[in-house]
Amino acid sequence: MARTIEYHFQVRWGETDAAGIVFYPSFYAWMDEASHHYFAEIGYPTTKLLSEDKVSIPLCEAKCVFKTPLVFSDQVTIRTTISEIRKKVFVINHTFLRDGETVAEGYEIRAWADFNTPRVRAVPIPDELRQAIESIETTA
Amino acid sequence: MARTIEYHFQVRWGETDAAGIVFYPSFYAWMDEASHHYFAEIGYPTTKLLSEDKVSIPLCEAKCVFKTPLVFSDQVTIRTTISEIRKKVFVINHTFLRDGETVAEGYEIRAWADFNTPRVRAVPIPDELRQAIESIETTA
Amino acid sequence: MARTIEYHFQVRWGETDAAGIVFYPSFYAWMDEASHHYFAEIGYPTTKLLSEDKVSIPLCEAKCVFKTPLVFSDQVTIRTTISEIRKKVFVINHTFLRDGETVAEGYEIRAWADFNTPRVRAVPIPDELRQAIESIETTA
Amino acid sequence: MARTIEYHFQVRWGETDAAGIVFYPSFYAWMDEASHHYFAEIGYPTTKLLSEDKVSIPLCEAKCVFKTPLVFSDQVTIRTTISEIRKKVFVINHTFLRDGETVAEGYEIRAWADFNTPRVRAVPIPDELRQAIESIETTA
Repeated sequence: MARTIEYHFQVRWGETDAAGIVFYPSFYAWMDEASHHYFAEIGYPTTKLLSEDKVSIPLCEAKCVFKTPLVFSDQVTIRTTISEIRKKVFVINHTFLRDGETVAEGYEIRAWADFNTPRVRAVPIPDELRQAIESIETTA
Repeated sequence: MARTIEYHFQVRWGETDAAGIVFYPSFYAWMDEASHHYFAEIGYPTTKLLSEDKVSIPLCEAKCVFKTPLVFSDQVTIRTTISEIRKKVFVINHTFLRDGETVAEGYEIRAWADFNTPRVRAVPIPDELRQAIESIETTA
Repeated sequence: MARTIEYHFQVRWGETDAAGIVFYPSFYAWMDEASHHYFAEIGYPTTKLLSEDKVSIPLCEAKCVFKTPLVFSDQVTIRTTISEIRKKVFVINHTFLRDGETVAEGYEIRAWADFNTPRVRAVPIPDELRQAIESIETTA
Repeated sequence: MARTIEYHFQVRWGETDAAGIVFYPSFYAWMDEASHHYFAEIGYPTTKLLSEDKVSIPLCEAKCVFKTPLVFSDQVTIRTTISEIRKKVFVINHTFLRDGETVAEGYEIRAWADFNTPRVRAVPIPDELRQAIESIETTA
């Protein structure tokens, strides 16, 4: 069933900087929250993954393009989609909306990674997870 | 005179996450610190710019590629260079090094922006600043 | 009319530390959010205070006592009350609840402060604000 | 041998808020850094404690009193002392200095805690650690 996964938040006081606009690393913290939210929504809560399976979704790269500054108390929605699933890696897209207007757009590339060994390493994405994502994304 | 501008820091306890490695938005906070450090080093401290001239250097976009996870108490150096100066915009490159090994690489595109008006807007980069940067970068 | 002002949030991934529990300074960030929420709820949004009147509510002191560690994705409620209004200063109490259980308790002492001058200084709390708070608190 | 343990830092851009002064929870993050620094200085680095012994020093309570606001790029020193060692708990005092002037003072009460079991619990402080602290503090 097609479904858009959205994460909602309000800009907090401490997230703005001395220039009065949002301190930009907060956008990445919000993408991170949106990704954890996405995995929980499709039945793969990341806390459970880490505590039970010692699996997590660390970052390979992340980029964000900023169009309009955000300020304290803005209500923001992030629309998250996974556009690509490679063997061990996901491409996760995030669109930031305020009052229906796109204020920023970014993506994260995350690995499916085994934290059992001292050295974290990417492992193949399980088929069930792949299917859970595809069933959300393909009919959107 | 050629000169490499470096910013040094140690990973703090609160910068790691539940998986025991650095929470990735911290890399952007560190790029931000390195950029403020760069401008201070070439004679343009950003606090003074903001308080006296109401000018600041907000972000247009930022990307980082992560090679090796960092953990609490790692000693890290960021090597910062400005590779391009457009009319109103800078491209700032950051290389993260731990024990001489590159652990991450990123860039920021920042505008030279006027904060006098309610709506922040990019304005042309002054010639003196352009020359101050070029004198650092061209002979490196 | 008696009314309890509550602020709700969920613990974010980046708010936990290498030991897997919440990085404790986050509790103060949450008290800060709860105080800004309180002032907005009683008709004094702090952004408007700062932008229009150059007034803000900086901290004199803050303390928190931690009873039970919080972990990623916990749903938490902060119940906020102002127990004392001195001439220029408020005492704001915060109780953190998870599933009805108190997990932490803290307070903030904040000044009513003028940010017009370079040097921030506490000024008398206006009578209308005092009454707005008392009308919430006295009948609780 | 008497020795004062000090932690030095510079206020970062992202640590200030929309009012242009330091976002107050940062003071607790700095006390946390100073405490980790203290334990490393006396031969008990907290990363090693956690990874090898599954022991950490979680918070029971923390308080800070703010005298003077800090702003971006201020150079600050924290002077840390342990004033009391109970059976399972330490009282750690922190004095924040800028140009020799005390700008804030706080304390943390931390437990010596076993993280081996799912439920974190305080355990008796080992005698060697107690002596390591006393040898620093008593002759100061």
